[in-house]
Amino acid sequence: MIRVVFFDLDDTLVDTSKLAEMARKNAIENMVRHGLPVDFETAYHELLELINEYGSNFGRHFDYLLRRLDLPNNPKWIAAGVIAYHNTKFAYLKSVKGARKVLLELKKDGFGLGVITDGDPIKQWEKILRLELDEYFDEVFISNDLGVKKPHRKIFEKALRKFNVEPHEALMVGDRLYSDIYGAKQVGMRTVWFKYGKYANRELDYLEYADFAIKSLGEVLEIVRGLNLEEKERADKEVHAD
Amino acid sequence: MIRVVFFDLDDTLVDTSKLAEMARKNAIENMVRHGLPVDFETAYHELLELINEYGSNFGRHFDYLLRRLDLPNNPKWIAAGVIAYHNTKFAYLKSVKGARKVLLELKKDGFGLGVITDGDPIKQWEKILRLELDEYFDEVFISNDLGVKKPHRKIFEKALRKFNVEPHEALMVGDRLYSDIYGAKQVGMRTVWFKYGKYANRELDYLEYADFAIKSLGEVLEIVRGLNLEEKERADKEVHAD
Repeated sequence: MIRVVFFDLDDTLVDTSKLAEMARKNAIENMVRHGLPVDFETAYHELLELINEYGSNFGRHFDYLLRRLDLPNNPKWIAAGVIAYHNTKFAYLKSVKGARKVLLELKKDGFGLGVITDGDPIKQWEKILRLELDEYFDEVFISNDLGVKKPHRKIFEKALRKFNVEPHEALMVGDRLYSDIYGAKQVGMRTVWFKYGKYANRELDYLEYADFAIKSLGEVLEIVRGLNLEEKERADKEVHAD
Repeated sequence: MIRVVFFDLDDTLVDTSKLAEMARKNAIENMVRHGLPVDFETAYHELLELINEYGSNFGRHFDYLLRRLDLPNNPKWIAAGVIAYHNTKFAYLKSVKGARKVLLELKKDGFGLGVITDGDPIKQWEKILRLELDEYFDEVFISNDLGVKKPHRKIFEKALRKFNVEPHEALMVGDRLYSDIYGAKQVGMRTVWFKYGKYANRELDYLEYADFAIKSLGEVLEIVRGLNLEEKERADKEVHAD
């Protein structure tokens, strides 16, 4: 019997990658508009390379971008980038299509709900609170707080302990076969791979750990209800067999 | 003859202090709303003390606030503070009453216009660009870029050199008697003290360096026009005396 459903955050509940791409493009566009003497394509390509090397949480993308482009440090250009980046992130932060509906239905059905995510805890909470997703969740688990990253067992085990459920009573939904699906399966959870965003066709070496693959979040409902119905029928049969 | 008018930025052109106060109050309010187990007054008072000690550009106000209140680190509360703080700063950033009008009039009259400000260059440019004040100014001078702070002569001398004017051809408008007025007078500029915000009655030891004191930015126009008229009349008299 499934009693708890866990969700990954980025690109599962929140449309992070699409938003980040839009924010970065708008940032470069605004820098060019304010005098950055480089064409959009060159600057955008350089920014993507930089993010690839330094990570997306690096705090100094725009001044490093100027260095890489052999340009002088210019706070006006940097400010133009920062403004457009933040404006985009604030204005266009959205939950993934169908996310609210599925959370609400699961809540009504009495399931425990949790988030299991990597990333900077403050930034993750910012997304959750800005979208008011906190209303739906009993618990939010952020791997950084435990000093690990998914697929490390520690975060999944903590989540199970907190809800006081057995692994087979929990379902994990996430977009990444490695961190979400392999991670959850390791501790014995049921797993739903959400084929969405840039990981929809990656990390396929870990495909065997996915019990289900879905293309829309709404399917989680059918899966959970289906699993619990099967379980119920099996239990009923056992009663009759007695 | 006045040919260039320089303006300080914070609390002269941009309503910085009022905004910061509003943003801090909203931050604490949102933290309390999301479960911070302390009353508003206690938390707000502690935040002000912290800012007093660590400065307003310290990047970790909210997690240090939790430490000072002997509370556990809680990214949800911090995120609640960060969100409300940023939302307020973005939504309520305003230029000081009358600023745009006076800049436009000076521009129409053919005066050179410059900003002379302290502070983090990117943050200062963010305010200028968000308010689209850059349209009015020929030059922006930020003391950090020269490794000094107002009233250091270096920043005022650079501004004069860049506009290629003599000190007596320049007027400095600012809210601080020490950094703006004493600073500008040191190098020989004419000075207008804008009695506004929290410095409206402070640093009075430097009052003697103010040629004029005003309570509304519009008065700058009358002052500049008056000074140039006097000058013209004096020049005319000299011609007649020849």
